[in-house]
This record gives sequence, C-alpha cells and structure tokens, in this order.
Amino acid sequence: MNKTMIYADHAATTALSPTAYEAMLPWLQDKYGNPSTLYSLARDPRKALAHSREMIAAAINADASEIFFTSGGTEADNWALKGTAFQYERGKGIITSAIEHHAILNSCAALERMGYPIATLPVDSEGVVDSDALKSSPMSDAVLVSVMLANNEIGTIEPVAELAQIAHQAGVLFHTDAVQAIGHIPVDVKTLHVDMLSASAHKFNGPKGAGFLYVRNGVNLIPLLDGGGQERGMRAGTENVAHIVGMAAALQEHMEHLAQEIKYLNKLSGRLIDQLKQYGLEFRINGSHDRTPGSLSLSFKAVDGEMLLHRLDLMGTAVATGSACNSKDAVLSHVIRAISVPKEYAHGTIRVTLGMDNTSEHVDRIAQQITSILH
Amino acid sequence: MNKTMIYADHAATTALSPTAYEAMLPWLQDKYGNPSTLYSLARDPRKALAHSREMIAAAINADASEIFFTSGGTEADNWALKGTAFQYERGKGIITSAIEHHAILNSCAALERMGYPIATLPVDSEGVVDSDALKSSPMSDAVLVSVMLANNEIGTIEPVAELAQIAHQAGVLFHTDAVQAIGHIPVDVKTLHVDMLSASAHKFNGPKGAGFLYVRNGVNLIPLLDGGGQERGMRAGTENVAHIVGMAAALQEHMEHLAQEIKYLNKLSGRLIDQLKQYGLEFRINGSHDRTPGSLSLSFKAVDGEMLLHRLDLMGTAVATGSACNSKDAVLSHVIRAISVPKEYAHGTIRVTLGMDNTSEHVDRIAQQITSILH
Repeated sequence: MNKTMIYADHAATTALSPTAYEAMLPWLQDKYGNPSTLYSLARDPRKALAHSREMIAAAINADASEIFFTSGGTEADNWALKGTAFQYERGKGIITSAIEHHAILNSCAALERMGYPIATLPVDSEGVVDSDALKSSPMSDAVLVSVMLANNEIGTIEPVAELAQIAHQAGVLFHTDAVQAIGHIPVDVKTLHVDMLSASAHKFNGPKGAGFLYVRNGVNLIPLLDGGGQERGMRAGTENVAHIVGMAAALQEHMEHLAQEIKYLNKLSGRLIDQLKQYGLEFRINGSHDRTPGSLSLSFKAVDGEMLLHRLDLMGTAVATGSACNSKDAVLSHVIRAISVPKEYAHGTIRVTLGMDNTSEHVDRIAQQITSILH
Repeated sequence: MNKTMIYADHAATTALSPTAYEAMLPWLQDKYGNPSTLYSLARDPRKALAHSREMIAAAINADASEIFFTSGGTEADNWALKGTAFQYERGKGIITSAIEHHAILNSCAALERMGYPIATLPVDSEGVVDSDALKSSPMSDAVLVSVMLANNEIGTIEPVAELAQIAHQAGVLFHTDAVQAIGHIPVDVKTLHVDMLSASAHKFNGPKGAGFLYVRNGVNLIPLLDGGGQERGMRAGTENVAHIVGMAAALQEHMEHLAQEIKYLNKLSGRLIDQLKQYGLEFRINGSHDRTPGSLSLSFKAVDGEMLLHRLDLMGTAVATGSACNSKDAVLSHVIRAISVPKEYAHGTIRVTLGMDNTSEHVDRIAQQITSILH
C-alpha cells in the first residue's frame, strides 16, 4: 500500500502483522511436512498446530481441545449452524438476529430452503438485539440461537451473555459470530456462556483464509467438511499450517496490548467525531455507545455514501459504505435498514474503522477530507 | 527439511515451489486489500484473483467462469457432493467407487446418514473402477456419479471419460476428484466429459489450504459455504489471495514442463523397481500399469509396512504406508482391501511417491535402505 494512503477499513480486513508474517514463513519454506503423516518431518508442523491451538484457546479462556481451525469466519459460521441443524430432522429451527453477517443470514436462508425454519430477533435503533423478544420466542423446536458478539457495520456490542443464558434456560444451544470482536475487545467464552464462537484471522492482523470455531466440550456438532481425521475428525483437510501459525501469532500480539489498543482506538474515533462536529457537518453516529473500539458508522444528511467513499478514495483514504466486506451492494444494507436510520441520512452512511496503524494525523486528514467533499 | 533427507511422499504433500512462494509474498505484505471492497486498494487483489482463475482454467481447458476457489481438495469434494445432493429431497442418491479418498467416502457416509442413499462401484485387482457395474447400476434415483481421476494410494488412473459418458447417458452428472492428477498428468475437462472436478494446491507444489472446484457452465450446484458474494455468490468468505496466487503459479509451472516431468518421474520409479528386483526382494506393485508418474505402492511379503516406514524414517527417508494423507490408521487401508492384495503382502505395503526434487541417487539410496532393512 502507498505510504501516503490512509487505510480506515479495518473491519473489512487488516494488514498482516509483521510478527505473524515472520512466524508463517518457515511453514511456507522448508517445514512443509503434512502434519498427518507418521514420519519425523511431520513432528514440527504437528507441534506448531498444537501450540497455535493453545495460544488461541488461552486468548478466549477456552481449552485447546475446544478450538477447531477453519478456512475463515464464514466456514466457522456455516459449520456452527449447519453442523447443528443437520443432526436433526427438518422442522427443527434456528433463531438469529436481523443484523447478522451474511455468513449467518445466508446460512439460515439455505437451511430454511431445506426445511429448517428460521426466526429473526429484532433490534432497537442502536442495533441492540431485543432480549425480551428472545424470552418470548417459542423455542420448543429451536436447536440453536445465533447472535453476533459485535456488529460489523455499526460496531454495536450485543448482550450475548444475557441472550445465551435465556437460550440455555430453554435448553437451546447458543452460538456467537465473534469475527469483529476477537482481538479487539476482551472475549471470555465462560463469562459469555456461549457454546460455540466463530472468529476470522484477517480481522485481527492474521492472514486471509484462516479462522476458528470454538466448540464447548460436550456440545454435539457434526462436520461440515468430511474426510480425513484432521481436527480430531471434526474438520477434514490438510491443515493450512502457515496460516494457523500466523493467526495464533497475530491474536497473541493483540491480547498482549489489548487494554492500550482499546484506549488508543477509542481516543482516535472520539477525535474524529469531535472534528467532524467542529466542522459543522450534520451527521448521526450509528450503533450503541458500547461499540468495538475505533469503529464508526456515520450517516451524513442528504449525502450519497458511495460518492463519499469514491471521493475519499481519490484523496487516498479507504473507508466502507454501509455494507461490510462486500461493499458492491449499492442498496441500503440490512443493518442500516434494521436500525431505521432516517431516510435523509441512511444513504449517506460510511463506515470508518480505525486500526493500530492509524494516527491522530490520519484522523485529522479524514475529517478535513470529508469536510472538503461535503462543504 | 534437512538436506540429507529424502522426501518420497509427494502424494501426501509437496514443498511449495519457490516461484509460487515469491508470487505469494506481496499478498502477505503490502497488497492486503480485501478484493470485495470498492476502493482502489482492492483493484490489485481483484486482478490477481482474475488472473489466477484464468491460469487455472487454461491448465484444464476450462473457462475462467467455471473455476471456483476453495480451501482445498476436501472442501471441493464436499461441496460437489453435498451441493448437488442438498438441492434434492432425501431419497436421491450418489454413486461412487470403493477406493475414493476419505473426503468423498466420508461425505457420502454423512449424506447417507441424512437420507441420501449411496451406491459403491467395485474395482478390479488393479484398482480400476468397473464400468460395467456402472452401466448396470439403477440410476433412476441417482443425481451424481463421483469417481476419482487417479487414486492416492496406488496411483491407478481411472477410465473417467468412459464412466462420465455412461452417467450422462442416464442423465446423471459426473464429478471427479482429480487431487492426485492435476499438475501430474494432462487433464482436459472437455475430453474427460466431467461436470465437476476437484483439485488441491499442495499436491502440486502450491500452498496448503487452497484448492478449486471446476463446475461446468450449466451445472446446478448450491453453495456449501453461504455468506458474502465472493466467487459469484457460490463460495462465500474473504479470498485467501496469497494462496490462490501461489496455487496458480505452481500449477502453471507444472503445465509448462509436464511432458518432461512425466518422463523423468516414470524413469525414477522404473529405476526403483529395477533395483528392488535386483536386490532379490519379494514384492508386488499395486495398481494398474497406467499410474500417476513417480508413484509406487509396493507390498513386501511378510513385512510390517509401518515398521518399514519408521525404519526408513530413521535413515532419513519419508514414505507413507498403505494409507494416504492420514497415515495414523494402523489398519489395512480401504484401497488395499478393495484390490484384494494377498494377505501375506497386504500388511507390508508402503507408498513411495517421487517428485521433481528427487534424483536417481535418492532412488538408489531408497532401494539400498529398504534392502538393508528387509534382508
């Protein structure tokens, strides 16, 4: 990336951390043995997988035996939902929320077409999932509740611990898509009371194409990818050793500095808001007060968000529109619709997600750039 | 890997080619943009994906629009089978062979548990799938026939073109697991008449954790991984750009030298057989005459194959036993059983799969080592 550019779309993807990169290289060079083989060449990659599993487990207060490596957050989400539903006859259902990532929503849609009914919990104007709606949901035929830990568009952190306990009281398992949370806020699977949790490496400065699913010991899940005996028979396929090692290294790095990072990113996003206000721009901040650090979904009055994105791009700044990873959607995102952003603001939505490579100077320039475009 | 070691388990995995490695590095460094985003940082990764897709399509005489990137051969196999079956009510079935990779066999087993019946075609003593058995199969309820292009344990190349045409005459789609074939023998999806084909990068000196599924234009398939709009809505998840670029580079490299490579590897495996015979060892060569170049499944009389593997390992040579990627299985592999290797030979099976990094001197040493262990 050009050094003069400002990258402010960390919720879409992040740069691979130099520590993770260095940790990966040996596994792309001489240490290429297949971990599933019997000879000594397999010993190092096997140890590396075990060590990575322990590092990741430690980061979320899980046991290493509860971590299963996947090709990313999407696979982890699909696996949690389909690997639960497919154990049952059609007719058993899943409860989710209106503002989930498409990996959840489209997995649910696929399951619904196959005969597994889906119920959708509403959210309030800040994007907080309605726990009363879950309490009053008929859960007798439900086999899983899946609600994200933090939203990818507006950053809202959901009351997962409360929702999970409501599900458990009805005897239903709980999964959370924590792709936007892991490495960014403290995550403890025990205090969250979750049975399953999805994560993606490239959202926390790990490589693209790696993720994991936490599956609490005792939870029944069937594989989504059947085949060889990897991941204790739960996820077949020769392991992407390099990426798994990189994922663990990147996560550990964040965990070591998490408190400082949160403070720094909150300061940066606060500074951006202050400046935009000082410039006299008319905008709303979407999402709840309790958001992922450094993330801002901003809706400017009577503005075309996509125009704003492209003009910022020409000035060297990368941000997203309302939609997340897949900004090709020109229509209003399902999240912006679900939180009922007033019409005159909704289409003027951009998402600025700051990371540790951003500086106060970046924030100042972003505020100036937005102002110069909109004034 | 230690330079004095001899790696002769290329069917389990291969070293990443230096060309592929170099091609991957920029995508693990500065060029980290998410290809699905709208700004200019996404342009280079998007172009890289398009270029990789064209290179891979060219290697198998397909159109770029028919190539879908996956996390490996296992995902491609699971997707082809489940993405076909799940379009139908339970009761619709799949026909496969007795010697498929576990990614196929265990996907079939999972589908069978869900109510999709599985029929298994027998093989002859050389591991060739019986086309008459397919002709006489009741195919009225079948939605897919899946037979591998080359076997991973004994190297037998299957009569896929013939089998595919039999399936088509009954109006049934045909998939082939070509994981052991791509990059090793000429593969042309048109002359093979296949509707779908799976491949894995790390079997042809690409990185672990990348593969692709060829899906002929016009074939109906539903996603296995639902979510974002990547891969034209057919395979969600942020693309592993580095690995996809590496996979394409590695495959192109093999395609440029394929004829010489086949000649060289056949010479090497022929030399190994000659030497073992000269040393007076009693062994059988499993599989048909038409095998993947450089691959040898050898069954030694009254020998413990696993003991042989470990003794060779101590001498610095890596080979496999009867089983493939997952050599942890101590029992006789399903392939060795299916081809009815006589009992006194079956347990003495090792798999030697040579690659372009092997030399005549390696082969001579392997023959000497085996002889010294068994004499």
